[in-house]
Amino acid sequence: MNVKSFFSEHIKAALKNDPPGAWMPDLPNGCIRLSSGYPDPALVPAVEIKGAAVRLLDEEQDLPLHYLGSPRIEGLKKQIQKRLAERGIEVMEDQLLITSGACQAIDLIARILLDDQAVVAVESPTYMEALEIFQNYTDQIISIPVDSEGLQPERLEEILNQRKRTDLTLPRFFYTIPTFQNPTGTTMTIERRKHLLELSNEFDFLILEDDAYGELAFGKSTLPLKSLDNRGRVLHVGSLSKVVAPGMRIGWIAGGSEFIKALEWFKKDLDHPFSQSTMAVYLENVDLEKRLDQLKDVYRAKCDALIRSLEQFLPKSVSWYVPEGGYFVWIRVPGVDTSHLLSQALAKGVSYVPGKYFFLDEKDGTEFLRLSFSYADEKEIIEGIRRLGQII
Amino acid sequence: MNVKSFFSEHIKAALKNDPPGAWMPDLPNGCIRLSSGYPDPALVPAVEIKGAAVRLLDEEQDLPLHYLGSPRIEGLKKQIQKRLAERGIEVMEDQLLITSGACQAIDLIARILLDDQAVVAVESPTYMEALEIFQNYTDQIISIPVDSEGLQPERLEEILNQRKRTDLTLPRFFYTIPTFQNPTGTTMTIERRKHLLELSNEFDFLILEDDAYGELAFGKSTLPLKSLDNRGRVLHVGSLSKVVAPGMRIGWIAGGSEFIKALEWFKKDLDHPFSQSTMAVYLENVDLEKRLDQLKDVYRAKCDALIRSLEQFLPKSVSWYVPEGGYFVWIRVPGVDTSHLLSQALAKGVSYVPGKYFFLDEKDGTEFLRLSFSYADEKEIIEGIRRLGQII
Repeated sequence: MNVKSFFSEHIKAALKNDPPGAWMPDLPNGCIRLSSGYPDPALVPAVEIKGAAVRLLDEEQDLPLHYLGSPRIEGLKKQIQKRLAERGIEVMEDQLLITSGACQAIDLIARILLDDQAVVAVESPTYMEALEIFQNYTDQIISIPVDSEGLQPERLEEILNQRKRTDLTLPRFFYTIPTFQNPTGTTMTIERRKHLLELSNEFDFLILEDDAYGELAFGKSTLPLKSLDNRGRVLHVGSLSKVVAPGMRIGWIAGGSEFIKALEWFKKDLDHPFSQSTMAVYLENVDLEKRLDQLKDVYRAKCDALIRSLEQFLPKSVSWYVPEGGYFVWIRVPGVDTSHLLSQALAKGVSYVPGKYFFLDEKDGTEFLRLSFSYADEKEIIEGIRRLGQII
Repeated sequence: MNVKSFFSEHIKAALKNDPPGAWMPDLPNGCIRLSSGYPDPALVPAVEIKGAAVRLLDEEQDLPLHYLGSPRIEGLKKQIQKRLAERGIEVMEDQLLITSGACQAIDLIARILLDDQAVVAVESPTYMEALEIFQNYTDQIISIPVDSEGLQPERLEEILNQRKRTDLTLPRFFYTIPTFQNPTGTTMTIERRKHLLELSNEFDFLILEDDAYGELAFGKSTLPLKSLDNRGRVLHVGSLSKVVAPGMRIGWIAGGSEFIKALEWFKKDLDHPFSQSTMAVYLENVDLEKRLDQLKDVYRAKCDALIRSLEQFLPKSVSWYVPEGGYFVWIRVPGVDTSHLLSQALAKGVSYVPGKYFFLDEKDGTEFLRLSFSYADEKEIIEGIRRLGQII
């Protein structure tokens, strides 16, 4: 058969790559996982979700197992609207779409806004899954460096001005994780956020704000970009994966109603009644503020342990950003190729993600690596960094 | 903002339509639902699924609530492989992709194979959601009539020969529901299946087989198209929505490993660990053959009640196909516009789906309507048809 001849260039390119998610080697048994961006297993509310599923099916019987029917699906949407409002984002029902996590949200937005003629701009480094998604649509991705205060908007402005002068296509949107960025853990300052919003207006692009970590501030929380957006420039993507449980696959997009309507047309996995309704019951029965405080306490303590261990066990030449929330610490090991180092680390029983995966040009990431303090416990974190210190 | 200028023509066209699923009016309270293609509420195993969720979380705690980790996700895949093998479809692990129901499966395949230059062929009438999906990608849809023995392959052959002679683009794939078709309830004969497979080879197109109803045969079951396919021409789409519960959103695509790999790249809702693992536990603990026998008994009895009522209450001029399985009966009411009649039916407290939604050219469906015997109980079915008889 000639299926191949049907494929677009981007599909052909994807086929040459390993399947999605196959970029990390399998971890040996007992390995301390500083690579995984998973929530702390002890903080995943398995008992409460079990209770929610039981309560849901006791109260509604078959309703949440049909395509439609459970009032809880609408209920979940209302709960998310309420949470967004508490963070300065007021949206109506038709300005919000529930998705299967942030990944599907990013993919749906890319699908509406990108084609092989389109340019998209991202932070450098950035979330590798987002890079993979955008590369399914276009080769024209430009990246703008991040420093300790997040994206450098003046660098973006330079590039936009240059492209304008030389008649190059301007980006259709800028993808950013402004708060507790993946992988750097950095947070864009308010001044820079305002600058970025001005640029989006001046150069007529949209902003895809990925706010997966925004609620996990160790101290004072930063308002989302969307809350500062009075011109409808920001598409805000959020998720319950980092604050409740990723396996429930609950995320969302907040944006203009017409844009949301277009997204609905292209989202063909329908709703996920059982999962969404179970989550709605869980949220009805939890004090989410209290839960968030608890998460912040645990992650703050684990982050502190990681930073102290870095100071204790790593050579002076190694540097990092100290995050104020989220899941990640970004490390620079001068003169070391972190993807070569990985096999030694795994042999010692500790994992991390080599920096190269977070850059458009892998060479830019040679000396970097991402550590996650979310999954391992404090003792493991300390022991993991001790082992890392031995091989660096 | 100028979001609109980013939209492709297909997105602009979609925005002019009502949102997906908004085509049926709201049903009045107490209305007998002969429109809904939902399973019988009494047959949705809410208690068993509750038991499965409890067992899963008791045994695995947080595992199925992470992105990865539950061995049940692989277990579900193995169970589906086993079921497919029992129906004559032998696939390896890399030839099978779990999806969020059949709709997402159809959309993913369309995404890989279609663009605005592509031609796709469908049955006439056909499943309206599939039409909606294909129209998101291309305007070039051709339709081939179905009769009491399913698709008429000689009509397809005529059209393909004609297109070839006149240098028109040939279709990239043919979408068919060969068994207990939606909406006609008809089943393609073995001879016609073989003819269609020959055509796919001669004219070099793929076949998208939607087998959502295939396991619900009242008598002898028909082998899927895919089981006759020795040239890798058939992409087989299945679902647990009609035999277990649609709200769990479990479907699949069986096809060539390279094609499956491409689909994986574009499926960005990740797995659905909680829902998939719960379904895996449910399937471990159910005798599915016994369950299918029970479903067939109930649906056969309800179908019989519907057919008997049609004979009793409808005028002689009205005709229908008698289905041998599935959920639907397709009715022709000569000289009546069924979409005008709908408001009268709803006022009487009975619903159906007007035929126009199942055709590319709505005019072709004026005299037709689809009745479903799956959702309402026997008494309601009889009363519903009595009411329908009063207004026809």
